[in-house]
Amino acid sequence: MTLWVRYARNGMEGFGTLEGDAIQPHTGDLFATAAPEGAPFPLAEATLLPPIRPTIFIGLWNNFAEAATKQGLSHPESPLFFLKSPRSIVGPDATIAPPPGYTGRVIYEGELGLVIGKRVSNATEEEAAAAIFGLTCVNDVTALDTLTADPSFPQWARAKGADSFGPVGPAIATGLDWSALRVKVSLNGRVRQDYPTSDMILPPARIVSLLSRDITLEPGDLIACGTSVGALPMRPGMTVEVTIEGIGTLRNLFGG
Amino acid sequence: MTLWVRYARNGMEGFGTLEGDAIQPHTGDLFATAAPEGAPFPLAEATLLPPIRPTIFIGLWNNFAEAATKQGLSHPESPLFFLKSPRSIVGPDATIAPPPGYTGRVIYEGELGLVIGKRVSNATEEEAAAAIFGLTCVNDVTALDTLTADPSFPQWARAKGADSFGPVGPAIATGLDWSALRVKVSLNGRVRQDYPTSDMILPPARIVSLLSRDITLEPGDLIACGTSVGALPMRPGMTVEVTIEGIGTLRNLFGG
Repeated sequence: MTLWVRYARNGMEGFGTLEGDAIQPHTGDLFATAAPEGAPFPLAEATLLPPIRPTIFIGLWNNFAEAATKQGLSHPESPLFFLKSPRSIVGPDATIAPPPGYTGRVIYEGELGLVIGKRVSNATEEEAAAAIFGLTCVNDVTALDTLTADPSFPQWARAKGADSFGPVGPAIATGLDWSALRVKVSLNGRVRQDYPTSDMILPPARIVSLLSRDITLEPGDLIACGTSVGALPMRPGMTVEVTIEGIGTLRNLFGG
Repeated sequence: MTLWVRYARNGMEGFGTLEGDAIQPHTGDLFATAAPEGAPFPLAEATLLPPIRPTIFIGLWNNFAEAATKQGLSHPESPLFFLKSPRSIVGPDATIAPPPGYTGRVIYEGELGLVIGKRVSNATEEEAAAAIFGLTCVNDVTALDTLTADPSFPQWARAKGADSFGPVGPAIATGLDWSALRVKVSLNGRVRQDYPTSDMILPPARIVSLLSRDITLEPGDLIACGTSVGALPMRPGMTVEVTIEGIGTLRNLFGG
């Protein structure tokens, strides 16, 4: 298993592998020709950035069985998704801030993120599985009162697309079995979500295969697999942490 | 008034100004430092490409008064929008193709497109007006039966985001008054949409100002202002043309 991070250090951006408390810098293309170059340095010398800056950032809705049961929803046969603005992406320790003038509820949603590593279009599930480069943590932040503010039009893109509403990181894990993980979210240290990825309705390879019928996916694209029960509003000053063992903890402050 | 195009010629991509039947090539950044370089050449020697490749591609819903009246919708006070996949973008003369396996209705929607030229965040209407670089034609193609296929979740991102569902072009017009235009769509030569942009509910500067509260807009981003009455399904083999006087005609084949 390898953990890939992007970082800023001495005013420069770079990427590399996280090995304990050290980063081994790499050169080249993360998805094609990455090779170690230079000496490892302490993680503490770097600021972690979003490990990926996707062009396409897809979020799934209603993809966990427990949440579907609780909400009385049937199981979809293909991904029900929205697009999140790629400008919503922020990294570890960044502040989540609601849009100016918005005073409604803002909820966290801890999710498993799939990072695409190969171009796929109309892919079989086998091809799709091979196109998934790695896994990361996503906080699919949502302005809940925006979503339902207009009775004629549910505002998914707006409610989920605001700047800073897409924390991702701290790393991309490769070689990790998606099906044996738990997604945990804590708010000010208190656990609020803790669900198994095995409860997913549409598994990663099927998600990517079906999405690729509509949208060609490219290296660096990010798919958030949907959340389960326990998504709640945050209050200003709270710290939200999405933890997936093997990937790490994505910690952000809610600026309110 | 200036018409900006992007093109392929002799295996190279470039951009420049369209002057009658000739293109004057330019170098630099379209939004900052564009300068003429080299001799003009005949338009016929080039293949026009999408004039813009946005990172953020926003589409508005319910933004024309006549259509709102016809559908019994009230006038929104802020933009009701979805995100279109930037990979849906295609240029003039490209073929629109539905996703593999989709056999439902596919409709055209002729729209005025706003091309952003400056970074704006939480902008006043005056700042927003100054951030609009120019205007283009957009065909906001929609898989109508996908949109409504799941009763629990309207699939805007999927229905409007498929590859090739975002024809744009043929040019970006700068220095054109948005309020005095008509958007015309013809299907196999028969006019099906013909509406004035003055019927817009939220005008361009207000749209950009309000959107920029949620999403920071950057040069090259594209906002489709919504459509009016007359959007209808296309049948395979049909040619669809979106014409806005002063910008040109965006012609595409529906591949079916």
